Amino acid sequence: MNEQFKNLKVVVLAGGVGGAKMVNGLAQRITPENLFIIANTADDFEHLGLYISPDLDTLMYTLANLNNPETGWGREGESWRTLEALAELGGPTWFKLGDKDLATHLLRTQWKRSGYPLTWITAQFCRRLRIGPTLVPMTDSPVRTIVHTDQGKLSFQEYFARRQSQPIVQKIEFQGADEAESNRDISNAIRMADLIVFAPSNPWLSLDPILALPGMRRILTASQTTKIAVSPIIGGQAVKGPAAKIMSELNMEVSPFGVAHYLKDLLTGFVFDNVDDIHQERIAGLGLNTLMTDTLMKSVEDQARLAKELLAFSH
Amino acid sequence: MNEQFKNLKVVVLAGGVGGAKMVNGLAQRITPENLFIIANTADDFEHLGLYISPDLDTLMYTLANLNNPETGWGREGESWRTLEALAELGGPTWFKLGDKDLATHLLRTQWKRSGYPLTWITAQFCRRLRIGPTLVPMTDSPVRTIVHTDQGKLSFQEYFARRQSQPIVQKIEFQGADEAESNRDISNAIRMADLIVFAPSNPWLSLDPILALPGMRRILTASQTTKIAVSPIIGGQAVKGPAAKIMSELNMEVSPFGVAHYLKDLLTGFVFDNVDDIHQERIAGLGLNTLMTDTLMKSVEDQARLAKELLAFSH
Repeated sequence: MNEQFKNLKVVVLAGGVGGAKMVNGLAQRITPENLFIIANTADDFEHLGLYISPDLDTLMYTLANLNNPETGWGREGESWRTLEALAELGGPTWFKLGDKDLATHLLRTQWKRSGYPLTWITAQFCRRLRIGPTLVPMTDSPVRTIVHTDQGKLSFQEYFARRQSQPIVQKIEFQGADEAESNRDISNAIRMADLIVFAPSNPWLSLDPILALPGMRRILTASQTTKIAVSPIIGGQAVKGPAAKIMSELNMEVSPFGVAHYLKDLLTGFVFDNVDDIHQERIAGLGLNTLMTDTLMKSVEDQARLAKELLAFSH
Repeated sequence: MNEQFKNLKVVVLAGGVGGAKMVNGLAQRITPENLFIIANTADDFEHLGLYISPDLDTLMYTLANLNNPETGWGREGESWRTLEALAELGGPTWFKLGDKDLATHLLRTQWKRSGYPLTWITAQFCRRLRIGPTLVPMTDSPVRTIVHTDQGKLSFQEYFARRQSQPIVQKIEFQGADEAESNRDISNAIRMADLIVFAPSNPWLSLDPILALPGMRRILTASQTTKIAVSPIIGGQAVKGPAAKIMSELNMEVSPFGVAHYLKDLLTGFVFDNVDDIHQERIAGLGLNTLMTDTLMKSVEDQARLAKELLAFSH
């Protein structure tokens, strides 16, 4: 651990896969008690009576070193016995429920039904899985992403998992965000932070739900600390998921500049990939400090290196 | 299939393990459309938010040839990945949820929450698993066994699974039985039956709940057909489960005679084991026809042989 940065208090706004990689890199560079992760929960949904939190699960499994690095979701060494038996009985199989993963869903659902808030449940899981950093859902209230498309209004899983992000996006809505309860630990963590990181998650589907919560933009804007986003767009493509497709459908420029422009009011700095060097000047022109580096995280080493560069860039 | 008996219309009142063995034997002797099985559902319970029907599952898995013959419950070739992950997360593990078995619980629970009755759900499962005979829950209404013991009133699973049938039974109550909805298919099947079989299931925990349903004793008593029970007690012991212990705690004679005496008003005949020959005269003295044979069903062949003898005895 680099002595220079390990005591920085870092808050990360994160979605699933990109968020998990960034967070995992940071976890190798700073002490656990200084890393505070706010997870998007607008993708949460019910399936087969189970309450499922895709981004929380991805972040949790990654921090516990239980994640499947191949798929980017679910657990490593997963098996599919329940899903196979479900198919045999004529049950739904479009959502890939792994046997080990199921335990998380069963227990979370049971606890939620017993009245425990998602924040408490997440803390229990993290304690059991010996996760050092603080991982919190963005809110305990139900917020749900509704994707307005050329095929009508779709729930996030309907759009993403069932229709494979094929429909053309017209607008994205976060149902319940206006009335969502805010978490005082989150606002405190943001106020105390030495660095706020916008993970290379989908800005429209993963970061925007967090930013849509009451007071969130105000607290972030008010913060005088360093605020850096890492571009999820590299060379005109999203590393994973429909970010690039959505940008294009929403008539934005599919580039790091497009992302920087979208988030600029909340940022002091922006990290993007070497392959996008032609955009450097325009991004700097937005009034942002820039770090151009290799941002593709293919390995745990890549994650740690990018985290180190990010921390060095921030101070 | 024995041509002589295959067209007999047979109704079986059944609990779990003993019931499943008897039913499986009969399924090899009579045509599927002539076998009608009424399953006890008073052991049903909720666990981890899942609606679980132990006896229906045992009967269903056995008829589909998916059962685990070693344990007498659950599915063959079962794995325990979810349960292991549940333990890791601090979840409850006292009830052994198998990965394949979980699919049944998840789907049944989901369907129940959507408003489908248990009878419909069971029929769906049977159709998917290509089960020929008709398997029905005793009622679609919630009936719950409450065991009054020296340690207080216990739910069935609390008594049976968690406390391993250790508490001393004082009384057994079937909550909800008085108001339970009766199933017209069941009363019709009983009226049309050429033979009614009381499976070698626990009379107090598995048969009594069925008999406690509104009108059930009346319909059975009114039936002029052959009504035969097979003793679950062999040589003073229950083949499986706490039947003998309960008999003794309820101050009954722990013998086939004790069972025959308890059920005598509903029966025309009684089947018991060769080892219990000393009880023959007293059982006959109750006004019952008797068949003394080898009643222990250790193999599928035993099941078929006992079924054949039972059918021959009945007509």
